[in-house]
Amino acid sequence: MHHVFHLLLYEGNRKGTGMSLLVVGSVALDSVTTPFGKVEEVLGGSATYFSCSASFFTKVKLVAVVGADFPSRHIRFLKDKNIDIRGLQVRNGKTFRWKGCYEYDLNEAKTVYTHLNVFSNFKPHIPDEYKNEDFVFLANIDPTLQEDVLMQVNKPALVACDSMNFWIENKKRELIRLLKKVDIFILNDAEARELAEEPNLLKGARRILSFGPKMVIIKKGEHGALLFSNHSFFSAPAYPLESIYDPTGAGDTFAGGFMGYLSKVRKITEPNVRKAIIYGSVLASYNVEDFSLNRLRRLTMNDIDRRYKEFKKLTCF
Amino acid sequence: MHHVFHLLLYEGNRKGTGMSLLVVGSVALDSVTTPFGKVEEVLGGSATYFSCSASFFTKVKLVAVVGADFPSRHIRFLKDKNIDIRGLQVRNGKTFRWKGCYEYDLNEAKTVYTHLNVFSNFKPHIPDEYKNEDFVFLANIDPTLQEDVLMQVNKPALVACDSMNFWIENKKRELIRLLKKVDIFILNDAEARELAEEPNLLKGARRILSFGPKMVIIKKGEHGALLFSNHSFFSAPAYPLESIYDPTGAGDTFAGGFMGYLSKVRKITEPNVRKAIIYGSVLASYNVEDFSLNRLRRLTMNDIDRRYKEFKKLTCF
Repeated sequence: MHHVFHLLLYEGNRKGTGMSLLVVGSVALDSVTTPFGKVEEVLGGSATYFSCSASFFTKVKLVAVVGADFPSRHIRFLKDKNIDIRGLQVRNGKTFRWKGCYEYDLNEAKTVYTHLNVFSNFKPHIPDEYKNEDFVFLANIDPTLQEDVLMQVNKPALVACDSMNFWIENKKRELIRLLKKVDIFILNDAEARELAEEPNLLKGARRILSFGPKMVIIKKGEHGALLFSNHSFFSAPAYPLESIYDPTGAGDTFAGGFMGYLSKVRKITEPNVRKAIIYGSVLASYNVEDFSLNRLRRLTMNDIDRRYKEFKKLTCF
Repeated sequence: MHHVFHLLLYEGNRKGTGMSLLVVGSVALDSVTTPFGKVEEVLGGSATYFSCSASFFTKVKLVAVVGADFPSRHIRFLKDKNIDIRGLQVRNGKTFRWKGCYEYDLNEAKTVYTHLNVFSNFKPHIPDEYKNEDFVFLANIDPTLQEDVLMQVNKPALVACDSMNFWIENKKRELIRLLKKVDIFILNDAEARELAEEPNLLKGARRILSFGPKMVIIKKGEHGALLFSNHSFFSAPAYPLESIYDPTGAGDTFAGGFMGYLSKVRKITEPNVRKAIIYGSVLASYNVEDFSLNRLRRLTMNDIDRRYKEFKKLTCF
C-alpha cells in the first residue's frame, strides 16, 4: 500500500517555485438541456472545469484558445480563481461551442453539436514560464496535440491525461503512442472497454497499463472510480446524490481535484494518489449539483473538507 | 457510525443456545449454461446457497421442500456442512428445477424454465425446535409464504429477507405488507428501482425504508453494494474479478455470509452490519468463480479471512 514509484519528488528536486500545475485543454461555451432546465452558451470546456476544480489546491497554468467573442466576464472569473491565463490564446474567430442534452437518467450526454471554431486549428503553445511545470495534465483534446504539448515541456515529474471515445475510435494509434509517455491515464468504463477491446475491466485495465501508464483510473459515474496499477487496486465510492442537475464537466472536475491535490502534496505515493481520487470525487460530486460551473463558483474549502470526511464515513468498516 | 438500534442483543437476552439462524427458501436442481460451459441438474436453490455460505459462521437451520428424486448425496453434503435439515421436507414428486443461461457479459440470467414441482404447493412448516431462532432469513419465495413463516416464529431479534422482480411485479401488495415486519431488506438495484418506482437509488431506498425495514441493502453486482438506513449510508466495493464463471446464487451467497456473520457476533450495530456486508461480499466473490456450489464446497475460513483483508486494502485511504 505504501509502494512509492519512482516519480516520488523530494523537496530538493523541485523545479517549480511552489505548488502549481499545467493544463492544456478546451475552453468553451456550452449549451445544455436537461429535464430540469436549460442553459445557453455558459462557460464550459474540459480545461475550464479542470482548472476551476484544481484551483482549490494549487496554482493552475492554463493553455487553451478562445475566440474574440469570448465574454470578458469569463476571463475575469478565471483570474479571480487565481488561474494563470497567460497561455490562453485569444484568436479572431468564434469560441469552441458545444451543445448537449441529457435524458431523464442523466447518465450520458447526447451531443447536439460540436463547433470547434478556433479549436479546429489549435496548436498548443506552451509559454516559456510554463515549461518547467512538474505536474502536467493533458485534458481531452486530439492525442496528436497532447503529444505536441509533451514535446514542449521539460521532463515533468507527472504527466496525466484524459481522452474520449471520439479519439479512441478515430485516432487510436496516436493515443496509444501518447500513452507511452503518460504516467496516469484517466477514462471512463465504456472508454476503457473500447480502448482495451475487452469487456472485463480488470483485464482491460491491465491491457491499458501495458501501453505505458503506471496507473489507470477508471471513472464509473454513479458507481465510483477504480484505480489500477501493477501493484494495487483501489475502489472509491460514489457520493450518494438525490439530485443530479447537470453532469457536464464532472469528469474534468474529477481530474482537476485529483491533479490539484497531487500537485499540492507533491509526493506520488499510493496513499496520496488514493486521497487525490477521493478529492476528485468530492469536487465532481459538487459539480453535478448545478448547471455549468455554478456550484464550483460558490464552493469553499470547508465544503470540500466536510464532504471528504463524509467519504471516509461512507466507506469504512 | 456507532448508532445502535434497538435490536441490540445482550448476552442475557439470548433465547437460543448458541450461534444459529433459520432460513426458509428453495432447494433446487439447477441447469446452467454459460459461454464457458454448462452443468445439468446440479445442487442449487436460494436456501442452499444461503445455508452453505452462512455455515462458515453459524449453525444453519433450513426449512424447504424437495422431491423424492432429490439425490441423497446432496442431503449428505448439507449435513457435512453442519446444516440442520430437520426442517427440509421430502415429498412425493419432483424437486424444484431451474434452468438458466448467461450471455457473454454474465450479468443477468435468462431463465429458460422454472419448474416449481413440489414447491408449487409448499407450505413452510417451522419445526418447534426452530421457532425460537433469533435470526431469521426469508430467502426469495412467495411473500405470502414469507409472511406465513413469521407467524410461526417467536419474536426473532432480526428478520431479513430477499425477493425478486417476479414478486415485485405480481405480488407487490403482499410484499409491501411483509416489509412492515422485516428489519433488513436485501435486493438488487433494478429491483429497488422497480419496487420504489423511482430511478434514483437514494430516493428509492428512502421509499423502501418507509415501508418498514430499518435497513435496506442494495446489491449492485460488479459495482458492489450499498447500505441505507435513516441514519447512515455505506458503500461496499465489489471484488475485482478477472473471471466470472457462474453468477448463479451470488445474491443468496451474499445474504448467507451477511446473516451468518451477524448471527455469530449477535450485536446488530452499524459497524457489525458493515462487516457483515463485507463478509457477504467475500463469500459471493468466491461463489462466482465456479459453477454451482463448487467453489464454496472447497472454501476454507483462511480463504475468507484472506479476502476480507483484501477488501480492507482495496478501500482504505
